[in-house]
Amino acid sequence: MIPVISVVGYSNSGKTTLMVKLIREFKQRGFRIATVKHHHRDVDMDIPGKDTWKHAEAGADTVVLACPGKVGIIEKSSRELSLDEIASRISGVDLIITEGYKKENKPKIEVFRSGVHLKLITPPGELLAIAGDTDLPGTPVFGLDDARGLVDFLVEKLSLTIGAHV
Amino acid sequence: MIPVISVVGYSNSGKTTLMVKLIREFKQRGFRIATVKHHHRDVDMDIPGKDTWKHAEAGADTVVLACPGKVGIIEKSSRELSLDEIASRISGVDLIITEGYKKENKPKIEVFRSGVHLKLITPPGELLAIAGDTDLPGTPVFGLDDARGLVDFLVEKLSLTIGAHV
Repeated sequence: MIPVISVVGYSNSGKTTLMVKLIREFKQRGFRIATVKHHHRDVDMDIPGKDTWKHAEAGADTVVLACPGKVGIIEKSSRELSLDEIASRISGVDLIITEGYKKENKPKIEVFRSGVHLKLITPPGELLAIAGDTDLPGTPVFGLDDARGLVDFLVEKLSLTIGAHV
Repeated sequence: MIPVISVVGYSNSGKTTLMVKLIREFKQRGFRIATVKHHHRDVDMDIPGKDTWKHAEAGADTVVLACPGKVGIIEKSSRELSLDEIASRISGVDLIITEGYKKENKPKIEVFRSGVHLKLITPPGELLAIAGDTDLPGTPVFGLDDARGLVDFLVEKLSLTIGAHV
């Protein structure tokens, strides 16, 4: 099983910014990374007017776009997939980082700013670390710019290694 | 194995228009359909500025976008996947229709207009049918608007059934 961690927090707390910093730091160290972004509402995933968009509009249940550098697959589903179901479709990476999925039971990093937020949204048992400025006894806190420190912590805490799941 | 057919033809011959008609006709009959669009050059698959786009820009090898109605997965690859490799990642459909992949060995429908094109690009052994206006002894020809006739033919020729691969 590829390890999965979730970056959670209130809307506009800075989750995407932290994701980008974590991805860059992990990639710099040679890790292969998958990310999963969760939306509560249906969102557009393709560029309107493209051929694949036309296929989907015509009713295709699954649409694949393949080119030399990458492959994209969009599947319609009658229900929302669980994070474990999504993770089971991912291969060839060392770590899966999700943005969102606060209700799933994966270890979490919560983005938190005490000037803006009142309380953590993560149950204590699922909280790996805080990115922000609050103090919580027993929980490591990293500055929002300290991707290096956070990645050092995650690599050790989760025993992450390169190539373990390829 | 889910059956795979390819719609091929010269650039701007009307492949996407035929794809859309075939998808609509198959869907109307209750079939579940996947489509695969092939590009020879690297193409954008996400909407610039979106969070998932930022993940990919930061270096993520795989990016997933999940919402209640669908899931999208974009994987970077160091080489181009074969059509069989792509087909192996598709499940839950009755038929896979590709737009392009003229060099793969799947049964093909060639879109052909005698006023515009000089000769067929499909090797005779791989040609299932022609959509257009040319005559070729022994090969069924369907009008570009005759999705109904073409689907009737494909269902019988390939023994397509609903739910056989779910």
